[in-house]
Amino acid sequence: MSKFFGVVPPVVTPLNDDFSVDYASYTRVLEHLIDNGCHGLFPLGSTSEVVFYDEAERRRILEHTVKVANGRVPVIAGVIDPATDRVIRHARTAREVGADAVVVTAPFYTITSQAETLDHFRMVRDAVDIPLIAYDIPVCVHTKLSRQTVVTLAQEGTIIGLKDSSGDDGNFRYALGDLADNKDVFLMTGSEIVVDSVLAMGAHGVVPGLANVDPAGYVRLWDAAKRGDWAAARTEQERLCRLFEIVWVAAGRVSGGATGVGGFKTAMRSLGIISTNVMARPRAPLNEAESRRIDEILRSVGLLA
Amino acid sequence: MSKFFGVVPPVVTPLNDDFSVDYASYTRVLEHLIDNGCHGLFPLGSTSEVVFYDEAERRRILEHTVKVANGRVPVIAGVIDPATDRVIRHARTAREVGADAVVVTAPFYTITSQAETLDHFRMVRDAVDIPLIAYDIPVCVHTKLSRQTVVTLAQEGTIIGLKDSSGDDGNFRYALGDLADNKDVFLMTGSEIVVDSVLAMGAHGVVPGLANVDPAGYVRLWDAAKRGDWAAARTEQERLCRLFEIVWVAAGRVSGGATGVGGFKTAMRSLGIISTNVMARPRAPLNEAESRRIDEILRSVGLLA
Amino acid sequence: MSKFFGVVPPVVTPLNDDFSVDYASYTRVLEHLIDNGCHGLFPLGSTSEVVFYDEAERRRILEHTVKVANGRVPVIAGVIDPATDRVIRHARTAREVGADAVVVTAPFYTITSQAETLDHFRMVRDAVDIPLIAYDIPVCVHTKLSRQTVVTLAQEGTIIGLKDSSGDDGNFRYALGDLADNKDVFLMTGSEIVVDSVLAMGAHGVVPGLANVDPAGYVRLWDAAKRGDWAAARTEQERLCRLFEIVWVAAGRVSGGATGVGGFKTAMRSLGIISTNVMARPRAPLNEAESRRIDEILRSVGLLA
Amino acid sequence: MSKFFGVVPPVVTPLNDDFSVDYASYTRVLEHLIDNGCHGLFPLGSTSEVVFYDEAERRRILEHTVKVANGRVPVIAGVIDPATDRVIRHARTAREVGADAVVVTAPFYTITSQAETLDHFRMVRDAVDIPLIAYDIPVCVHTKLSRQTVVTLAQEGTIIGLKDSSGDDGNFRYALGDLADNKDVFLMTGSEIVVDSVLAMGAHGVVPGLANVDPAGYVRLWDAAKRGDWAAARTEQERLCRLFEIVWVAAGRVSGGATGVGGFKTAMRSLGIISTNVMARPRAPLNEAESRRIDEILRSVGLLA
Repeated sequence: MSKFFGVVPPVVTPLNDDFSVDYASYTRVLEHLIDNGCHGLFPLGSTSEVVFYDEAERRRILEHTVKVANGRVPVIAGVIDPATDRVIRHARTAREVGADAVVVTAPFYTITSQAETLDHFRMVRDAVDIPLIAYDIPVCVHTKLSRQTVVTLAQEGTIIGLKDSSGDDGNFRYALGDLADNKDVFLMTGSEIVVDSVLAMGAHGVVPGLANVDPAGYVRLWDAAKRGDWAAARTEQERLCRLFEIVWVAAGRVSGGATGVGGFKTAMRSLGIISTNVMARPRAPLNEAESRRIDEILRSVGLLA
Repeated sequence: MSKFFGVVPPVVTPLNDDFSVDYASYTRVLEHLIDNGCHGLFPLGSTSEVVFYDEAERRRILEHTVKVANGRVPVIAGVIDPATDRVIRHARTAREVGADAVVVTAPFYTITSQAETLDHFRMVRDAVDIPLIAYDIPVCVHTKLSRQTVVTLAQEGTIIGLKDSSGDDGNFRYALGDLADNKDVFLMTGSEIVVDSVLAMGAHGVVPGLANVDPAGYVRLWDAAKRGDWAAARTEQERLCRLFEIVWVAAGRVSGGATGVGGFKTAMRSLGIISTNVMARPRAPLNEAESRRIDEILRSVGLLA
Repeated sequence: MSKFFGVVPPVVTPLNDDFSVDYASYTRVLEHLIDNGCHGLFPLGSTSEVVFYDEAERRRILEHTVKVANGRVPVIAGVIDPATDRVIRHARTAREVGADAVVVTAPFYTITSQAETLDHFRMVRDAVDIPLIAYDIPVCVHTKLSRQTVVTLAQEGTIIGLKDSSGDDGNFRYALGDLADNKDVFLMTGSEIVVDSVLAMGAHGVVPGLANVDPAGYVRLWDAAKRGDWAAARTEQERLCRLFEIVWVAAGRVSGGATGVGGFKTAMRSLGIISTNVMARPRAPLNEAESRRIDEILRSVGLLA
Repeated sequence: MSKFFGVVPPVVTPLNDDFSVDYASYTRVLEHLIDNGCHGLFPLGSTSEVVFYDEAERRRILEHTVKVANGRVPVIAGVIDPATDRVIRHARTAREVGADAVVVTAPFYTITSQAETLDHFRMVRDAVDIPLIAYDIPVCVHTKLSRQTVVTLAQEGTIIGLKDSSGDDGNFRYALGDLADNKDVFLMTGSEIVVDSVLAMGAHGVVPGLANVDPAGYVRLWDAAKRGDWAAARTEQERLCRLFEIVWVAAGRVSGGATGVGGFKTAMRSLGIISTNVMARPRAPLNEAESRRIDEILRSVGLLA
């Protein structure tokens, strides 16, 4: 079995009021995730607001992550940018810094075909000696990695795994079936709310942004699934679904991007993990009324006294 | 009237076989555009494959452009990346290098609202002392700049102009009407094929990728429109429409992104302007059969003997 | 030249408060259009709310239209329903009732390919001896008739014309060019706001919903274009663009469908042409504040004292 | 608990070579479903190609269904057409004919808001005394019924249930949670391939087109879920996933609509249930090579010797 499995959160990047990264808070986020049993860390993912940061800042974030993790759990690093050579550059940095694998999306902004997307992954793999994980996130990238694309890349050895944030669980199930005999490949879901279902299908892990707020909940869910206690898994999942309502508290007032990460950051501030709920520009933070509504939700699921 | 007007091509970035920028060819492209009467240059646009290049390469491309232009025509520099602080960084470089203005899209990958998009433009404007041009290109960015967003930004002085590549000429016409009294603002179309129509509506210029292949044709079209000879403008436009068929020669075999820029580069190679038709990775170049078909089109409009 | 040309409005269907068709008002609408010089009538189009009516009501509407028109202008009848055999049935009715041609969309609800769409048009043509006009309206049908589809159908004689409500004027221009030598085929735009441009490209007519409100304006625009007075055409078009703002008066409060047809009906009520601004269910009518705003617009363009 | 639960297939409508309904085959389909333990029948659904049929044919199909069912299982009738009054008319027919409930989509072709969609369901409910089931199928209708819309309609008593063919299982789970205390309401999934997951979430039934081919498989899956044997449910589901590959056998050659229903009809012909694999026009049937490939799949899951 792969060393990549279980609960691997995309790590929130805390900011100071001046939009610089708040590394003291970031250390607390990382320790919070490791202490609560997460099996890996995914810095520089979409939840980390990766595309808001330039090359230099990404390197610092990744160096800090690797230093804090200190080998306790694997670190998979997002290397997300519009096209191949820029991804290669980020992947080289990730390798230098000591990440265990990199997470690569299809090209974006660029109007690309599935054939070019195959080439994109192969070119990155050929250029840098670090394992690749494909990241299917059509809501951001605006193309979907087809079942055939994922299976081809996995069977030929270009990728070692998939993070599926497409919401198409049926398609994901087919990829699991197609790759069932390939023990070197793992497939994880990016869903926060159907994790019990996807683990029952045989998924190897979960990459939930919401685990920044409640890592212990997702670890309990994972553990229940591992021991085959699906009733317990379902109960925990439904509790996490109620918690996930924090991502819609500011819906309508701010964008879908801002209300989601904003919900996480605001909850983490209430829980004392990070110092501000500032998001990368131009995203506006959640306001105090929204923060109070989030506190109610945190209390309703037992996270806040 | 603004100093920005007329034919302002997004400049193709020629590459060597190893995917490095071919600056000798690039100089020829720039001279070809200036010699044929273009009124400005737009390096680092979508046609320039801007999002495929990192910060360092973008700086070199821009420095080279400014050096070759040498004040003969204004240079507007694309500063296109997913979010605000990265755009600010590119805009600072553009200012240092000596660009006359920067061209900014809405955020992408990020799931942003029109309100956040307004803030995005304002934050860039506040951070860097260089004029801003908004770039509406929903096919790449996946959000459209609404009429209200464009008019608000123009009336408050955040932007000095618009490049409209949305294909929504009716909406563009309304923006022209709303801003008719504001002589400091210009609105240009990114269309290659309805330029006569849009100039007749009062547009201040055109930013056609196809002008890399036939700058003289677009300058003739512009001049005809300026003197009110709409029949001549229409005749020239229809000739350019026939030429524009080069962008569909590889349609189906490669992606929409590749067949478009690939058509331009292949034609420019046939015309002796650039040395290869290589595109930025992962885009595959057009093949020899497609190149021959492009040559036929070039001959049919009188560009090739 | 085809007998189908010029200004051919999709005719608004006035309703009583109980949602039945108000035939007295409908007669006034038809006379208003004919009196003001329209060259044809298009009942049962999208603006007519065709898909809200069943077979029996459609027959009555069409019979009434043909009776009132009484040969003064040609009548082209929308036969719009999801799939082939239902369209055939409507087309048979249209032929029986005495329509001059029928207007057919691609299938909808049905997830259809361009190849099946070609077959759809051919099957309707084979089944009923009445000329066919293709109607490209992707905003409703959710597929676009490609340039190749339109040209194929026209060249083989399946269709005699096109109503293009796709908003893709560049594509429309290519279809005009491809069919320039085919004098039996006409191509009309469904746009209200770029009619001068599209006529300058060589379009054979215009099918503007807004002509229900101001037929004389569109006839003046058509006449100016016919005599080559493009400055006059542009001036009239820009006046009509200001009038077209009525379609956004209720935007945000009601759906895009309701604010558009609702704007037309409310304006027509203010002008004394129809008795209510009721729309087909479930569309909610515009309210009094919105009606007053529409009256201001009507006054600003000289339609209301 | 509602009388609507379990496996309720949307019933395939078999056709003769002349596109008329083959009622002898249709009787066999209905008996095949009832004999194999299905808990209800859903004629005139999307899989039934409902929108291809006019009012008279729909009545005949429904009359035949009710007559054959003869009270053995409830019959829910699709009343799918673009707008409110046409749906009301179909619903009146369904009531006259003796259907137990009607299945209603949001309006289509019409560009409608969620507020108008709420009104649409309420108007149908007010007009006809028959229970309403909402049908969420954005791939055909091009709007999604939001969680809030479904919950509002259910809580106020406008609808008694939902068929969710949106593929958004997370959203469906929230609707299940919101309505958990309302014992009068049922929620069914339209998925063929994640039924075990959705039943584990608490769904009340499943409406799988594929049950036309293998009703016994879905009944076994349902029974396993009812007795809490999730391992058996998963095994059966995975077998059905392999069978479901029949819907992609003609992908690429024909449309998504045709390859799906075409796969079902071709398999049912091979199994001797229906006489032809003809689809409603303009859909082209699967060819012999595709039929052989489908037979292989049928053999691989034990349905064909």
